[in-house]
Formats: sequence, C-alpha cells, structure tokens
Amino acid sequence: MAPLKLGMVGGGQGAFIGGVHRMASRLDGCFDLVAGAFSSDPTRAHASAAELGIASDRSYADFVEMAKAEAARDDGIDAVSIVTPNHLHGPIAEAFLAQDISVICDKPMTATLAQAESLVAAAEASKGHFFLTHNYTGYPMIRQARQMVAEGALGEIRTVEANYLQDWLSVAPDEDNKQAKWRLDAAQSGGGAIGDIGTHAHNLACFVLGQRVTSLSATLTSHFAGRMVDDDARITLEFEGRAKGHIWASQVAIGNENNLTLAVYGSKGSLRWAQENPNVLCFSELGKAPQMMTRGGAGVSVAAVGVTRIPAGHPEGYLEAFATLYKEAAQVMSSQDGSHATISIQDGLDGVRFVDACQRSSRGASAWIELG
Amino acid sequence: MAPLKLGMVGGGQGAFIGGVHRMASRLDGCFDLVAGAFSSDPTRAHASAAELGIASDRSYADFVEMAKAEAARDDGIDAVSIVTPNHLHGPIAEAFLAQDISVICDKPMTATLAQAESLVAAAEASKGHFFLTHNYTGYPMIRQARQMVAEGALGEIRTVEANYLQDWLSVAPDEDNKQAKWRLDAAQSGGGAIGDIGTHAHNLACFVLGQRVTSLSATLTSHFAGRMVDDDARITLEFEGRAKGHIWASQVAIGNENNLTLAVYGSKGSLRWAQENPNVLCFSELGKAPQMMTRGGAGVSVAAVGVTRIPAGHPEGYLEAFATLYKEAAQVMSSQDGSHATISIQDGLDGVRFVDACQRSSRGASAWIELG
Amino acid sequence: MAPLKLGMVGGGQGAFIGGVHRMASRLDGCFDLVAGAFSSDPTRAHASAAELGIASDRSYADFVEMAKAEAARDDGIDAVSIVTPNHLHGPIAEAFLAQDISVICDKPMTATLAQAESLVAAAEASKGHFFLTHNYTGYPMIRQARQMVAEGALGEIRTVEANYLQDWLSVAPDEDNKQAKWRLDAAQSGGGAIGDIGTHAHNLACFVLGQRVTSLSATLTSHFAGRMVDDDARITLEFEGRAKGHIWASQVAIGNENNLTLAVYGSKGSLRWAQENPNVLCFSELGKAPQMMTRGGAGVSVAAVGVTRIPAGHPEGYLEAFATLYKEAAQVMSSQDGSHATISIQDGLDGVRFVDACQRSSRGASAWIELG
Amino acid sequence: MAPLKLGMVGGGQGAFIGGVHRMASRLDGCFDLVAGAFSSDPTRAHASAAELGIASDRSYADFVEMAKAEAARDDGIDAVSIVTPNHLHGPIAEAFLAQDISVICDKPMTATLAQAESLVAAAEASKGHFFLTHNYTGYPMIRQARQMVAEGALGEIRTVEANYLQDWLSVAPDEDNKQAKWRLDAAQSGGGAIGDIGTHAHNLACFVLGQRVTSLSATLTSHFAGRMVDDDARITLEFEGRAKGHIWASQVAIGNENNLTLAVYGSKGSLRWAQENPNVLCFSELGKAPQMMTRGGAGVSVAAVGVTRIPAGHPEGYLEAFATLYKEAAQVMSSQDGSHATISIQDGLDGVRFVDACQRSSRGASAWIELG
Repeated sequence: MAPLKLGMVGGGQGAFIGGVHRMASRLDGCFDLVAGAFSSDPTRAHASAAELGIASDRSYADFVEMAKAEAARDDGIDAVSIVTPNHLHGPIAEAFLAQDISVICDKPMTATLAQAESLVAAAEASKGHFFLTHNYTGYPMIRQARQMVAEGALGEIRTVEANYLQDWLSVAPDEDNKQAKWRLDAAQSGGGAIGDIGTHAHNLACFVLGQRVTSLSATLTSHFAGRMVDDDARITLEFEGRAKGHIWASQVAIGNENNLTLAVYGSKGSLRWAQENPNVLCFSELGKAPQMMTRGGAGVSVAAVGVTRIPAGHPEGYLEAFATLYKEAAQVMSSQDGSHATISIQDGLDGVRFVDACQRSSRGASAWIELG
Repeated sequence: MAPLKLGMVGGGQGAFIGGVHRMASRLDGCFDLVAGAFSSDPTRAHASAAELGIASDRSYADFVEMAKAEAARDDGIDAVSIVTPNHLHGPIAEAFLAQDISVICDKPMTATLAQAESLVAAAEASKGHFFLTHNYTGYPMIRQARQMVAEGALGEIRTVEANYLQDWLSVAPDEDNKQAKWRLDAAQSGGGAIGDIGTHAHNLACFVLGQRVTSLSATLTSHFAGRMVDDDARITLEFEGRAKGHIWASQVAIGNENNLTLAVYGSKGSLRWAQENPNVLCFSELGKAPQMMTRGGAGVSVAAVGVTRIPAGHPEGYLEAFATLYKEAAQVMSSQDGSHATISIQDGLDGVRFVDACQRSSRGASAWIELG
Repeated sequence: MAPLKLGMVGGGQGAFIGGVHRMASRLDGCFDLVAGAFSSDPTRAHASAAELGIASDRSYADFVEMAKAEAARDDGIDAVSIVTPNHLHGPIAEAFLAQDISVICDKPMTATLAQAESLVAAAEASKGHFFLTHNYTGYPMIRQARQMVAEGALGEIRTVEANYLQDWLSVAPDEDNKQAKWRLDAAQSGGGAIGDIGTHAHNLACFVLGQRVTSLSATLTSHFAGRMVDDDARITLEFEGRAKGHIWASQVAIGNENNLTLAVYGSKGSLRWAQENPNVLCFSELGKAPQMMTRGGAGVSVAAVGVTRIPAGHPEGYLEAFATLYKEAAQVMSSQDGSHATISIQDGLDGVRFVDACQRSSRGASAWIELG
Repeated sequence: MAPLKLGMVGGGQGAFIGGVHRMASRLDGCFDLVAGAFSSDPTRAHASAAELGIASDRSYADFVEMAKAEAARDDGIDAVSIVTPNHLHGPIAEAFLAQDISVICDKPMTATLAQAESLVAAAEASKGHFFLTHNYTGYPMIRQARQMVAEGALGEIRTVEANYLQDWLSVAPDEDNKQAKWRLDAAQSGGGAIGDIGTHAHNLACFVLGQRVTSLSATLTSHFAGRMVDDDARITLEFEGRAKGHIWASQVAIGNENNLTLAVYGSKGSLRWAQENPNVLCFSELGKAPQMMTRGGAGVSVAAVGVTRIPAGHPEGYLEAFATLYKEAAQVMSSQDGSHATISIQDGLDGVRFVDACQRSSRGASAWIELG
C-alpha cells in the first residue's frame, strides 16, 4: 500500500499531541505528511512547516485556505489531522469534510454538543471519512479484551471500573503552560478532567463492552479557587446491558502520571488492564487462578495479534497504539478491511453527550441523567 | 503483663472468624481463652469447647447464662469476644456490659441502627470497655498512613478511593454455606456487601483521614434474582474536610479474593495501600518519584514500628494485624497506653449509620444524604 | 491435642529469633513455654525468664543443668528450642538429645562439619526427635511448589535460581550490633552470607525439587577490609537430576530487606515465588499464559491447604510459616502424621556440607567440588 | 535534518529483525529506506523490495553488487543496515565499509573472533562509521542508570546481576522455523543463548557500569540431545573495578518471553530495571525507601530525557529504544553530537570475545578465563 498524503492543522512548535500524531502516522509507513497549517500564528506556522520538511507552498496560515487549496491540487492531501484545542475541532473538520477530504480528529470531538451535532451533519454530507483518535483503543490487549467480551468469555457484564488519573494539575500551572492554559479555559476545552481524560475512560469502557452508557450520576469538583473547570470527576454509570460502573477522572491525583485503568467484571470472569503497563491483560475465570495474558503471548486472539508489530516480551507502547489508529484509517480510506475498530463520529457524539450529561448532573446534585 | 481471661460467644465448629479471633488473641500472649458459648446449639457448643480445651464448667449453651456465671466467679473472664452473626452483636454485648465485662466485638457493630443506639447507651452505663475489631486498622502501614496524614505529609486531603472487592458471591452459594446464609439474610446481617465489607472500607478511610463522612450518594445493586441484599455497592462521599471520595464494595468481582485498597490524595502528596500485600505503602510527594515504604523499613514512624513484631522483609499478615487489636485492647484494659488507635463505639455507630444512609440513598435514586 | 511443654536455650532480651520462635510456638496452641536458659549471662537469663512468665525454678543459667533438671522432672519439657549463635547449636542439641528430649534447632545446624557429624551420631542414639527450622519451607505456596514438582507438573527440571538478598551489612555495623557481631565472627557463625542465608536458599531449592546438590562451583566475596566472612556469595550448582542452578546470597544488596526468591524451570513448566509476597506462586505451563496461584485460591493442592489457616486474600506471613514448623514438630512428637515435610538432621548435615564445599571451592579458584 | 538514505541487507519476507530495523529507522524521520538486498534468494529479494516500495533498480540480489552500485551512484545510500544471520555480518560490513558506506549492524557483531578482528581492521581503514544495534541501550531508563552510575549515585559498584530469559527454545523447534534454524547452527550463529541473548546482557551491564569484564567462569548447557549450541548459560564475572557479577541467559525458561533484567548494587545504592516494563527504574539509596523513577518523571536526568519522545506515563517500548540508536547514528553521520552512547566496534569486539571466553571456560570445567 503506497502511503497516503496527510495534512495537519495545529501541532506547531511547542505543542504536544501534534508530534505524537506525526510519529504515529509515520511508524507503519501509511502516511506522508505533505501539508499543514501548524499554527494560527503565521510566523510560527511557517517555521514549524520548514522544520518538518513541508514544501513552502503547502504551508498555510489558515485552515480554510488550506482546505480549499489542497482540494484544488491534483496531489492534494487525502486526509487531515486536527490537533488543535477542542473548540476548533468542529469548524476545521467541517471545512475539510466540505471538500470531501477525510478527517482524523483528536478527542474530544468538539467542545460543545451543538458543535458535535453540526459536525455529524457535515460528515453525513461528505464523501470524506471521519476518524476520532481515542488512541487507547489501539492497544492490542484492549482489542483482546473487546473480543473476549464480545465472545462471551466474561458472561453477562455486571460491574465496570474505568479510572484515569493524572497529577499534572495538582498545582496551579505556570502562566506560560500552553497545554494547561487552553484546557483550563472552558470556552476552548468544553470541560476539565471530564473532557480531557474522562472521555477517554468513557470511550474505552464502551469500546470494550460494546455497549453505550444509558444513564449517569456525576460529581465534578474543582480543587482550586478560580479554576473554572473540574479537575476531579466521579461518575456512577449504568450501561445498556444493565451493568453498573464508575468512572473516576482526576488531574490532581499526585503520583499518577497517565494512569488509565479498566476493570470489567462479568458473571463468568473478569479482565483488568493498566495503560502504563499495557502489554499485559489479567484474565480471571470463575474458579480458576488469574492468568496474565500478554501481547503476542499464549491464548491471544486475532483481534490483538492483528495490531501487534513485534513478538511478545518486546513491549509496544503508546505510539504503537496510536499508530494503529492511523493504519486502520489508511486501510478504510484504501477500501480495505479495517473499519471494525475505528472510532466513529457517533462515538464522538456519545463522548460529547457524556461530558454534557456529567456537567448537568453535577450541577443538579448528582441527579441521574438519561442519555439518549 | 499477665494474660487476661477471655471468653467467646459464637465461633464454634464450622465458623470462620472465631478461629481468627482465637489465634489473634493468642499470638502476643495477652489473653487466655477460658470460657465460651460457642454455639446456640448446645451439643455443638460443648463439643467446640472440648476441642478448644475449655473446662466443661465454663462451656455455656447460652450467652445470658454465661454473662451471669462469669461475672459471679472470682476468676471470671475479663472480656468476651463476640463472633456471631451481626444481629446478635447488640444483645450479647449488652448482656456482658451489664455485668461490667469488657466486649471485643466483630464488625459491623450491629445489624440495625436501633440496636447500635441501644448499645451505645449500654456501653455508657457500663464499667466495661467496648472494642470493635475493624482489624484492617491494625496493619502497621495503615498506622503509618494515618500518622502521615495527621502530620500533614499529604497536605489538605482532596480525594479518596477505598475499594473492597471479593468474588465469593459471584455465584449463588450452596444451601449449606453457613457463611453465606446469614450474610444474605438481611434480618441477620443488616445488609449485603455494604455491611459486610463496605463498612470496613468506610472505617479504614475514616481511620486514616481522621475525618468522618458528612454526606453520601449510594447505588446498591443485587446481581441475582432473589438475592435480598446488595452484592455490589458504589458510594460517592464527602468528608468533613471537604475531600471527595468513593467506596466500591463488591462481592461479585471475579478474580478478587479479599482485595481491600485505599488511596488518599492530598495537595502535597498521596498514599496507596493494598491489603493483599500489606507490608508496602506507596508514598508520592509532589514533584518526587514515588517511594515504596515498607513495614520496618526506612522512614517509618513510631506509629507503625510500635505494632510491628519482626524485621522488614519478613512479611506480617492478617493475623498479626488482628492480633494488634487484641493487644491494644489488653493494654487499655490493663490501664496502659493503647487507646489511641482502638475503634470506639462511636466509630461503630458511625459504621451502622453509614450502612443505613447508603440504603436510604440507594432507595431514593442516589439522592445525597447528610450524615449527622 | 493438648499443648506440649517447651523449653528454650538462648533468645533472651535483645535477641531476634528467640521471640520469633516463641510467637511461632504459640500461634497454633501446640506448645507452652515453661522453661529456659535464655542467656549465658545469669542476670539476663533470669530477667528474661521473669518477663516471659517462666517459673523461677525453671529458669536456668546453664543449658547442661537445664537438660538434666528438666529430664528429672515429671513435668519436664517435651522439647527444647535452640536459638543461640550457630557454634553452640551442636553442644546444646547433644545435651538435650542425651536426655531423650526432642530438639527444635535454628539453622544452620552447626558452625562446622565436625559438629554436624557429631550431632548426627548423637541424634541416632537418642529417643528424642530433631527438627531444623528452615522456616521458609513452611510457606503454603512452597508446599504447593514442592507438590507440583513431585507430581511432574513441571516435567524434568532443567534450571533453578534461588536468590537471597539482604542489605543490612551494606555498611560496617555498629560495635554494639549483637546480631551482626556473632554472624561476622567465623568462629561463632561458621560463615557469612553463605551460612546465614545461603543455607536457606540451598535448603529451599532442595526441598522444592526433592533433590540434593551433587556438585558446585562457588565464588565468595567480602566487600569490606577486615570483614573475615563473605557477604556476597555466588554458587553455580548441579542437582542429582542433572538440572543446573545458581544461588546468589548477598547481605550487601542495598534495597533488599529479606528478598528470598525461587524460580524452577522444567521441560513442561515453571514456578516463581518471592518470600516478601509469599501468598502468590506464578505457574507457567508451556504454551499457556502464566497463572497467579494464591494461597487458598483455585487449583491449590492439599499440601498447601493443609498448612493454611485463613482464607485466600487474607495474607499469611513469616510467623505463620514458622508456626507451621512448630505445629508439624508437635504432630510428629504426638505420633501423628506430620513428618512428611519436616527438615531432617540429614538435611541439616547437607546444609553444613554445602557451606563447607562453597568455602573450599571459592578458596580453590571456584573449582567444581563434588558433594557426597 | 533531512533524512539520510538507507540500504538494507537481509530482512526479507519471513524475517523478524529486518522489520524492526525498518520501523526504528522510520520513527524519527532520520532515514529513508531506498535500496536493499533483502534475501540471498533473488526472487524473494525482489518481491520483498517491491513490497517495501523500493525502486527496482535498487533491489539487489547480492550484497557485493549492492555495495559497489550504491557507491557509484550520486544518490547512493549513506548507510546500510545488516540484518542477516551472524556469520554474514562481517563479510557484508566489510564490503560496505570498503566503499566508505556506514554500517548499522545487528548483534552479535560476528560469529567468530577472527571475523570480529578482521572487521575491526576494515572499519579502521574506512571513512564509514560502524554502529552495533545493542538496542536495549536505547531505553531512557538505561541511559538514566548509566548516568547515575557515572555520577557516583551508587558509590563503588559491588555486585551485578544481568539475566536474559526466554522460553521459545523450550521445545525442539519446527523444521521450518527460520529464526530457530540458523540460531541453532553454530556455524551461522557462533553460539546459542550465549551469543543470541547473553551478549545483550553482557553489553548492557558493561554499558551501564562503564566498565569491561576482566575475567569470567562459565557453565553452558544444552538441554536437548542433538542441540549443538547452548540454550542455558551461567557466567560468574569480575569487572574492571573489582565488582562481581553474574549473567544468566536462557532460552528454555518457560514463562519468560523476553525477560531481560539488570540489577546493579553499589556501596551507596542500587538500581533495578526490567525490559518488559522499561519505563520504570527502581533506585534504592542506602537508608531510604526505594524510589520508582519513571521515564519523563521526577528526578530524571538529561541523559534519559534526551531520548524520550512523549510524556511520563505514556509508555515507550522496544521500537522507540531501537529508534534511538538509529537517531543517534544519524546524528553522528551528520556530524552532530550523538556519539556518546553509540555502541562502538570495540564494544562489538568485546562481545565476541565474551562469547569466545564463555565457550572456552565452559569446555574447561568452568575455569576462570582472563579477558584481554
């Protein structure tokens, strides 16, 4: 498969997630980055482009211009990666979808529910594909977990725990911390821990269960005077299949770097997984000793093996999991199989609805909210 | 210190916790077991007494008779251990307290709030002491955690997670499972997972924080048709000091044997502990690498060292932690220092109030309930 | 079973292992401590006896006198625990065996090979039993491992690793460190790390394999000028069944408290165990995911269950394992079954031979030494 | 920095390590793969080239031809990756070095000592650089360990343990297992476990210590009749600085996938690291609780941060560590700083000498062998 041509919006100098997307797009040789509007500041945009080896005529200062110009080229981009603050995801995605250019968008899908609904309509009207990078779904042992749940290895699911703990907002961030600044501004982020990491936990649980959340009761807290968004969120959930669950997302949990964990308990067995040591999945069958399943190891299914690059015991990490989402996007765009695990625009809409419901519940004394 | 004379009610053949109390009372040489009403079935009671080497004139078929007879003897018992199903704790304790005999009572204190309040009154009127065996508070690293919180090593507490997961009720128990039978009967137990293990999690969090829970929102679930009590409980909490928290108690979490964990996050640091590997406490200070503190190891305070029997690296376990409660009860009864860490009757009352509030919240759509 | 009457030699104020033996003897109610010669210093001996509640007429200043006096009493002791420095084990044991009093002796059996051979002869001539407290063999998961090896679950054993790492001699000890003083004096200890902890590793490997070591090549090192005994020992081994192995015993391995580990690899599977978290045994079968077997958990054999006091998930530790050796000694002395797992005087002789061979090999440029 | 042009010898369809080198070379955008002799079988070579998008005029069936043709082109390759069986490393490397083309060679450097010495001479005569991919040295926490040792954080090094355990040769491999076939043929591999993985353990220990091994005593074993090379190797070592050490390399250790571990103990502290969870490094300072240092976390030095791509808690793995060696090769070739951590041809020679000495010691009853 020849590499597809990729553009990027955002991700200039000083950004974090843009570099991740670039490494992820490159690892499996599925994409070549050929164009970009890397910053809303033209000077920074062009400097970033030069650093990245982008031809100067394909370095843009404006995403609207970029969408039109690339659509007009014979060798225009096949897809664009959107790696800006959340409130821009929707407008940018719509601009490229309007040109039938596929979109690979960082999460959460949008900052507001209105933006999400508008984007869904735009995607339906476009020939372009839409992919949302809930990158933790790319881990082989998460694919393994999802297949085991689907095949009934756990029986009926009863109770689920998804925690996503970080500590980088345990103190008030410096004024010049670019990552913190927009995340703590509700207008740009749409929410605090609940949007930034809670949506990952929500998506991961739903992805593995193959079920949606039907109702929730949330308690969102900010531990700093003047911090306008939550930094610690606790949500009690119910899933379609009647399972109960709980999500805890915190950015003030000192001692946790990026500690995303998932535990799923069913009537026949359970699975436990931790992102910081992602090559292992603990499977407990009723009445048997727990087994430590490993990526590439004994008993692992095709769903996991298919997204594994190197043998068991040679750890794959975050970039490899992220790269799998790029590879699968490329497969879908090339009309190959690969769609089975991609995160759809409906999943993205569910994520934004989840944030919105959590915020409404928390404002209303944790009253249970039904999700549509 | 010469051993004190101990009696026991309950704990006959086929029981679990009675044997634990006996080993715990014996380990440090603080008590001699000399009397008992080991079963409400006289044949079983006397057979158990014989097995345990109890003189036949001090084997009783009835706890009321035992309280009176022992009080009348010159060499009567100094204290009684109560290791029966929960609904009998109150009446038995009151019978012995009425004779000014001290009581060492298994948890939860009673099956109902009315029983708990009655018992508090009885204890106030007695010269006997009352001790509640929330045994997990006897672990040295829990004492360490409590002292660190009290000394401010964690700063202001922000968020707390206490989980207590078991799997022994993941299937419907056999008809002849004595342990399950009374626990699943609300009249005898007063509650399911919430009473049996949720109260341990609640007590442990309060013990380490040195704070009471002020309000809660609970969701209690039973995963079996016909199971009258909850087997999975999730409670969102607020503590006196404004910290938020969550307790998850489940007896249907396959792969968990007795997995009680506590994590406490403050503005300056955090602590994490797991009962199944209890000699380690992970301490994370803001801006430093997490430290694995060990029982007997570097940096451990007098609160932990004082309840440690053997050097670091030689693991102490459940029985040793339980024995510490017996040792401290003996110290209090002998008018020695030791009261600082005992679980009081007020703590017991708080535990029963906690269960009651959880049940009311859950019945009321998880509405927040204030605790007095 | 009524408690047996126990005496003790050594273990007075300031000692470590004496208190361990006392708790271990008490936990299961199999022994009552009634006599002792707790120190070679009469003042300390009697003070210790008083503290321990020993009647003054059974507090002795001399072990020879004690052996004779106790043998002469109608209510004389059934067994004596020997918890002195190593060079006294042999003479004391012989004194009691000469009176047909059973001996429970701390390890290593003696300080020299000549003492060991003399003791073997004395034991053969006595009606008393001899028990050696290689206490790590009392852990339930070690019993499990041994049974699995015996039943062939691992196939033919190929390679074995037993490490015993401590760090308490990483610096030169204080002058008044009683524990260090005699251990670093070859005349009293018979060897350094090799004797103090290397013999535990050797015994544990042989116990689990059910095989003796046939030859070895050793490198013993002392990392301090003037330290006359080794503090770091590495021994390459061959077992009867042709398996290769390695023992590493170090008392200068900073960060290790009492880190004894065993790994056994066979043609069909492997087992891995660590003393500091002793309730777990990792079993890997060829072509299957590793299983975390637990004390009391699924798949555990009668050999482990029989030495387990409390349910899975309620950790048992060092004292419980030690107590199992006392319980089994009591069973043997009471003519009950229990001998299957006791450490015999021949095992003790093997241990002293192991130390002797390691010392000879190391002095001889690590030349391979055959063991008889 | 514009990408350098890379060629490859070996690594065609069905190979393992070739794909790893390709992903590693691509991840950081430092190399473009533009030429190759992917197999000694011309059909397979050209099919592999086509799959990899290599222009047909740069797909070669013969490495000698490739070296000459590429040297003659204006746009010829800057470096060649050698990913063949070991016995071909030397001849291929010499062919490219003769054309002043840099070489990135998989380990061990050669199959024989004679080949290694010849290659050293060839490298000295060439303007090309030589890089050996002991890829485990690319892990950030290994860089951290090396810097800490160099800065004296551990004091004087006393004892070292490097284990590399696998289980893929626990059974006789299938006839068509290409990876096993050449590795078990001494003529192609130069040795068994000792060469394939023992050299990694040896290199890693030397890299972290900044010291060479001065003498060793080895015991190499084959556990299968007819297996001509060792599958289990135990080597006792002494380092330049008088530290003792031990390497255990086994390919019959069931339950181990790729379990490379390193522990270094000094007079002031210790470090422990495990490749299968490589983002953590346990640092124990004398008299302090062990710290869990993490890649990107608190207290980590520039040596680690400089080879880190993504924040703490987002695990990097084997491919990232491997990519670091490619990135540093590119830096050296571009006359940028980067040479400080590259594995030199002298290191490669040391590795081959290590294998040779182990084999001689083992044949000679484990006699100690001095290394030059």
